Amino acid sequence: MKLSKLFFRTFKEVPCEAEITSHRLLEQAGYIRRLGKGLFIYTPLMWRVLQKVSHIIREEMNEAGAQEVSLPLLHPKELWQSSGRWDDFTADHLLYTVNDRERHEYCLAPTHEEVITFLVSNWITSYKQLPLNLYQIGTKFRDEIRPRFGLMRGKEFLMKDGYSFSDSSVMMEQQYQTMREAYSKIFKRLGLDFVIVAAHGGKIGQGKSEEFQARADAGEDVVMICQNYSVNLEAAESIPPYFPYEKPLKKMEKISTPGVITIEELSKQTQVVPQLILKTILYKLIYADKEEFVAIGIRGDRAINELKVATHFSSIEVVLATDEETKTLTGSSFGFVGPLDLKLRFYADRTCKPMTNFMAACNEIDVHMINVNWERDCPRPEFGDFLLAEEGDACPQVPGGTYKTQRGIEVGHIFNIGTKYSDALSANFQTQEGKQRCFYMGTYGIGVGRTAAACVEQRHDEKGIIWPLAIAPYKLFITPVTIKDEIQVAGAEKIYELLKHFEPLLDDRDERLGFKLKDSDLLGVPFKLIVGKTFVNEEKVEIESRAGEKMLVSFTDLVRWASTHIPLQELGFDNAKVSELEAFKRLNI
Amino acid sequence: MKLSKLFFRTFKEVPCEAEITSHRLLEQAGYIRRLGKGLFIYTPLMWRVLQKVSHIIREEMNEAGAQEVSLPLLHPKELWQSSGRWDDFTADHLLYTVNDRERHEYCLAPTHEEVITFLVSNWITSYKQLPLNLYQIGTKFRDEIRPRFGLMRGKEFLMKDGYSFSDSSVMMEQQYQTMREAYSKIFKRLGLDFVIVAAHGGKIGQGKSEEFQARADAGEDVVMICQNYSVNLEAAESIPPYFPYEKPLKKMEKISTPGVITIEELSKQTQVVPQLILKTILYKLIYADKEEFVAIGIRGDRAINELKVATHFSSIEVVLATDEETKTLTGSSFGFVGPLDLKLRFYADRTCKPMTNFMAACNEIDVHMINVNWERDCPRPEFGDFLLAEEGDACPQVPGGTYKTQRGIEVGHIFNIGTKYSDALSANFQTQEGKQRCFYMGTYGIGVGRTAAACVEQRHDEKGIIWPLAIAPYKLFITPVTIKDEIQVAGAEKIYELLKHFEPLLDDRDERLGFKLKDSDLLGVPFKLIVGKTFVNEEKVEIESRAGEKMLVSFTDLVRWASTHIPLQELGFDNAKVSELEAFKRLNI
Repeated sequence: MKLSKLFFRTFKEVPCEAEITSHRLLEQAGYIRRLGKGLFIYTPLMWRVLQKVSHIIREEMNEAGAQEVSLPLLHPKELWQSSGRWDDFTADHLLYTVNDRERHEYCLAPTHEEVITFLVSNWITSYKQLPLNLYQIGTKFRDEIRPRFGLMRGKEFLMKDGYSFSDSSVMMEQQYQTMREAYSKIFKRLGLDFVIVAAHGGKIGQGKSEEFQARADAGEDVVMICQNYSVNLEAAESIPPYFPYEKPLKKMEKISTPGVITIEELSKQTQVVPQLILKTILYKLIYADKEEFVAIGIRGDRAINELKVATHFSSIEVVLATDEETKTLTGSSFGFVGPLDLKLRFYADRTCKPMTNFMAACNEIDVHMINVNWERDCPRPEFGDFLLAEEGDACPQVPGGTYKTQRGIEVGHIFNIGTKYSDALSANFQTQEGKQRCFYMGTYGIGVGRTAAACVEQRHDEKGIIWPLAIAPYKLFITPVTIKDEIQVAGAEKIYELLKHFEPLLDDRDERLGFKLKDSDLLGVPFKLIVGKTFVNEEKVEIESRAGEKMLVSFTDLVRWASTHIPLQELGFDNAKVSELEAFKRLNI
Repeated sequence: MKLSKLFFRTFKEVPCEAEITSHRLLEQAGYIRRLGKGLFIYTPLMWRVLQKVSHIIREEMNEAGAQEVSLPLLHPKELWQSSGRWDDFTADHLLYTVNDRERHEYCLAPTHEEVITFLVSNWITSYKQLPLNLYQIGTKFRDEIRPRFGLMRGKEFLMKDGYSFSDSSVMMEQQYQTMREAYSKIFKRLGLDFVIVAAHGGKIGQGKSEEFQARADAGEDVVMICQNYSVNLEAAESIPPYFPYEKPLKKMEKISTPGVITIEELSKQTQVVPQLILKTILYKLIYADKEEFVAIGIRGDRAINELKVATHFSSIEVVLATDEETKTLTGSSFGFVGPLDLKLRFYADRTCKPMTNFMAACNEIDVHMINVNWERDCPRPEFGDFLLAEEGDACPQVPGGTYKTQRGIEVGHIFNIGTKYSDALSANFQTQEGKQRCFYMGTYGIGVGRTAAACVEQRHDEKGIIWPLAIAPYKLFITPVTIKDEIQVAGAEKIYELLKHFEPLLDDRDERLGFKLKDSDLLGVPFKLIVGKTFVNEEKVEIESRAGEKMLVSFTDLVRWASTHIPLQELGFDNAKVSELEAFKRLNI
């Protein structure tokens, strides 16, 4: 492709909304153009990148025995009601809904469990037809609370989603492992530095699930790592460092704490360490058909993991009680809610169990109690795991190990969702014994655009993007030093022709060399071939890799050079087709 | 692919909603599954077909110099308002609209003129960067009045849409011709019998436009053909057969016609031929901001082309006046509206100009006037072309020629839309003379799913689909006569392995041969390879083409047989990649 023909544009200015590097670079290099909040146009350059990512995904999916389908984007409301997710998703306002002219309601698909289950039901009737794995690569919609970070979190985005159907939990586990391996291969081929972490199923399902997290400081997720075990902060179980609670119980006393509502200030004023303070938080649990309130106690030095709260109470959402609700329910206000004389269901994190002689609020404004003890002074709560893990906590999975934290970008997610959807939609098959049983299902996703953006987060420098060879939209950037010199121009064109099979860009624009090379580096082209006065007469060209490595290669060696530096598979040949053609050649067809 | 693994199912029952063959066969052969009205799932078989169609489109588009992009499906309302099409489309209720959580409004894209113009503006700044042609293949949405005919008319559908940008009408015409040729190549490669017809621009634009119509009795469009000239009925100008109107004007008289409201009955009762009756129709013209009424006269033997009416009056839509409106406006009722004493704007089709001594209603119930004459008896109307063409009419484009009619499926459409969108969105470039000018635009579309369905309409028999080789999802159907015979099974597997590069299906199901061959024919696989007792010991296989041609081929000749019957290009190799690999082979890389 000649740059004078390529539809692209580079920008010096940093786009005002770009909070992270990948967003900034993809806009500055003209890969994406913003149409509106969370909506991006993929230009020819970006579309080439995304097609290459998709091609790699397809190869590995097909290799793993999955079959590609394409499912509608408009989903009838009734179908989502049958799984119970219509209410679930609309309560969170994550679903775009549409009416047709006959006032039938649809949602714009954020995921396809219901549709795929509908598709498979009645078509797969026997255990003999299992396992089955179907996938697609297409647009998904999500009415994000805060669309941001470019391709990371958009209103619509490109995704690979796949679904497996098995006859048993054993076969399901095999399918899960097959996808786990296929996903690992995909992200390795993309050159991503990633970690597989235990995860929370979220709105998809409550079974086993893991995320593929690309390490990146700009990532929205926090990954807790302890030796070989990794887990998303959202799902992490952990044990805080030991704190020695006193044994002899002291007498409970009331102290005056006017206007002191934060733990920090309370600790400072009373000289009581936060580990000895019980913090009580009032939550509203939102269900499809009701709302309930619950109070949860946590050690003063720690925070509550609200996802654990939602999971514990099986609620759709969990929000903090408002000032008004707090007043109505406890008669006190924020900062002074506590377990004493509380007329509400009261739970506490399990780390609060050993607490003795602790300080707590008592639903009386400007007052706290010290030396409070469970049972003696207030009812013993029901304990549960509501703790937000922290770096330095012990990891229950690794004896003696403690967690370190790292930020990550969730590029893939695999789930064992059991029979949640097949039960709801009555999707059955006949077992070997002639009985009807619901499919065991798995669901597997890769954010295609997000994966490309994660590559940029991991691979860039101050000059621009450094694409891995596999998904670089073009592999070579060829330019004469000056377009005024006919010999150089002819040399560049000769090279362009010689290397036409290696996805070259020829910069035929009438611009300064420095300007052109800046564009090449910003775009992230792996190799620059510079045709200058010094060597063109000797039919040699200077080559510089994006990493800065320099070579001088004669025209006659160029194709050999290119074919060693750019393997066939990186040019989008799939393995099957290469061997196929080789077979044809052998037959002289 | 082994059939025991392929996710597919065939049906004996005709799906109840299938009104046309392609819908019926695609459902019966398991290519599509209906999710809801106008919503279809593409199974692995159908997705292979659609990918093959898309591949051919991409090859020809890239060859013609177009570049692929991908544009969002959610379009901000403001952008569509700037072109004036928000009101235009919503008035027709063709647009699905969506609100996000911040109450911003979007539409689901039915077409992308606004977005592509937005993309190109500020990126293309100089005439030197022109022409430019961008395209995409993706989902479109349309809130159809009557979703039906399977993939022909759905609520969402797969489409290739492309847009060209030029610096002048001359360059625009070149782009138009380039796309016209590329489209012709595409439909030829798909083996479609098609005709290019002059068309009405519809809601896209009013410039020159042509449709690619696949001939098919099930087609929704009527094509008027006169030698080399073809035109969509909607857009056809025509001249009805000559009728000798009398010269001496007779005296106008009132006659009683109680309850006679159709032309047919009127003609029968009065013995006046329909050519001598003036029919007057009351229309409501709908604009974005108002509604207006107009009466249009037409010869009694002919019908009005309502699209011509809408175009003539530049209204968004045209609907018949209701009974109530008719009464309010004329004091009379349906069947008795006429040009005499009419308090409304009155137009007539130009074929009414020579009418003399004609019969007409006079806005008085149960009464008609005979021997009416223009000017003498009623005001001479403004004449225009409102005539719906008919077979046998003379074609103004071909001296002496008359039209024949044929039904067609619109598989492609190309438009010269001039500066409609670039004007509206102020999308300018700098001319060679340094002036700012708006882009001259073209827009080009192919219905991808509809094209595949049109292939089925043209190519099927009582047994099922007959895919053209280029888009058959699998090329070969290999089966042993009986799965009980190990030698036959081994033979079939050997052939399957030998021909693995030629997209074979191996039927390894435990079913009767007749059942299997029926499936193969229903699916439309081009060749059946039947491994039977008689020949398997001689290492020979019976081959039967879908057309019924039979061959006996020895195992050793099979690859050669396959490679002569199934060219590389039909296996999805693109031309560039084939020559590329050949080049590598020559270099022994």
